Amino acid sequence: MKLVIVGSVAIDDVETPSGRREVSMGGSATYSSLAASKFTNAGIVGVIGDDYPQETFDLLKNSGIDLKGLEKVSGKTFYWKGKYNDLNRAETLDTQLNVFADFVPKLPEEYQNTEYLFLGNIHPQLQLDVIAKTQKTKIIACDTMNFWINGTPDLLKEVVRKVNILFMNEEEIKSFTGKNNIFDAADEVLKYGLQYVIIKIGEYGAIACSKSMTFFTPIYIIRNVIDPTGAGDSFAGGFMGYIAKQDYIDDKTIRQAMLYGTVMASFCIESFSFDCLAASTFKDIENRVNRLKETILVN
Amino acid sequence: MKLVIVGSVAIDDVETPSGRREVSMGGSATYSSLAASKFTNAGIVGVIGDDYPQETFDLLKNSGIDLKGLEKVSGKTFYWKGKYNDLNRAETLDTQLNVFADFVPKLPEEYQNTEYLFLGNIHPQLQLDVIAKTQKTKIIACDTMNFWINGTPDLLKEVVRKVNILFMNEEEIKSFTGKNNIFDAADEVLKYGLQYVIIKIGEYGAIACSKSMTFFTPIYIIRNVIDPTGAGDSFAGGFMGYIAKQDYIDDKTIRQAMLYGTVMASFCIESFSFDCLAASTFKDIENRVNRLKETILVN
Repeated sequence: MKLVIVGSVAIDDVETPSGRREVSMGGSATYSSLAASKFTNAGIVGVIGDDYPQETFDLLKNSGIDLKGLEKVSGKTFYWKGKYNDLNRAETLDTQLNVFADFVPKLPEEYQNTEYLFLGNIHPQLQLDVIAKTQKTKIIACDTMNFWINGTPDLLKEVVRKVNILFMNEEEIKSFTGKNNIFDAADEVLKYGLQYVIIKIGEYGAIACSKSMTFFTPIYIIRNVIDPTGAGDSFAGGFMGYIAKQDYIDDKTIRQAMLYGTVMASFCIESFSFDCLAASTFKDIENRVNRLKETILVN
Repeated sequence: MKLVIVGSVAIDDVETPSGRREVSMGGSATYSSLAASKFTNAGIVGVIGDDYPQETFDLLKNSGIDLKGLEKVSGKTFYWKGKYNDLNRAETLDTQLNVFADFVPKLPEEYQNTEYLFLGNIHPQLQLDVIAKTQKTKIIACDTMNFWINGTPDLLKEVVRKVNILFMNEEEIKSFTGKNNIFDAADEVLKYGLQYVIIKIGEYGAIACSKSMTFFTPIYIIRNVIDPTGAGDSFAGGFMGYIAKQDYIDDKTIRQAMLYGTVMASFCIESFSFDCLAASTFKDIENRVNRLKETILVN
């Protein structure tokens, strides 16, 4: 497998100013793998319950995502209910971990040789366990959330020491480092030995920082945002998929990956669940990347 | 005069996390004209009281700013006292309009033939009066604030109909148009006949929109921000100074002007008052513009 993605697979109930979808397929690994699947062979490691719709399973499979690592166990799928009063922040109304509560990522044998690994937002100990099971990774990236930054900071630091790329949003990186300035915070996490830290700043885009580079990308403008759920995961999935496809990492590849990630996030937010993300074609993606480039073109 | 700048000239008392300066030279026209003076011949139209320090007057003059339109009247100079608890928003502790309360912009004769006019944030009626007094303008730009957006919206709309370039921050443009999405808001103001609207988004940079173009510039990274006062005015002054120097306006010039404005703002915030802004050299400016370009360079 070129790229292995570990994370949550969920059934959401989402309300936004545009309406509500009561059974909305979600989860970080779902969004990330769908975005990544546009670029490379990607496999999911996750868990679903026996209520997971067969048609969604089939859709993921037909999108070219490898599902050998998607374990089905007895019980209900991870459930999240949320409401967006404005489009920048969700209010969680209900979370039922269900089968995700006892999730222990199991890597099929061929996944253990993966070259690219993306650890979605799960318990840092599980992230460490997955890292320990892979032997041939070229690039490991991880995402996390405030819950782990505050709850298990030492374990998370151990993860950060072992990865090449870290995804965090602005609030998370400030909280993780105790620095109020984004760029001071980036310097601080780069001390852990990371090659790149990618700071997501929501409606203002994202910033990639290494020891030698800072690169800003704005958002790809979507006028009618339907549902922001999964935007960050789609960004990371598109980013990692692009890198895995190039099979090379340097500043130039990272700059391009930032644009491709941004565009995948733009498809994600145009519909509930992953409708538009799944439907996006290679041509759609390239068109948006070219238009995004124009918005930062100087000369 | 190539560029005439109309606005406030003030004595500030500013406290930031870095310290306090009790007698800090400020005002929108001061910052704008100092930034613009790095690029072109600029003249201020404003008013000061008899407490205005001669050394500051001399410094402005020695920076090449034409002060024929800077009227000195009996009384105290406009005074503002503010405190930044964080660096993104000032709390106003005291405002004394003093001689600025009765400010009626008087344009020296040679200013009436100015080709470039920047109307800083003053009463929209005064902005209209100045526009009426100029006959040969190629480009008129204006700034404003929520006070006028809420207080005199119809007069402000009349101003917007007469200018080529409008500067607003994100909150202002949303409030002015009643649109929640920045880009919908930009479309709305472009209907007034503007060529470009420049939306300042503080620590995330700025966006230039026309009917055919959207251009994002991030900030120029300053690690140790001392005092944000005047950043937006320095941005606008640098932007207008650059355009006046080129004496030409198209998408390419606007993109460059966005970068030059951004860099002038970066000098502004590095010190209290305009210390660093005034001290910046052509070489400093070019170096920063080149480094800023690298942060959005794709290929």
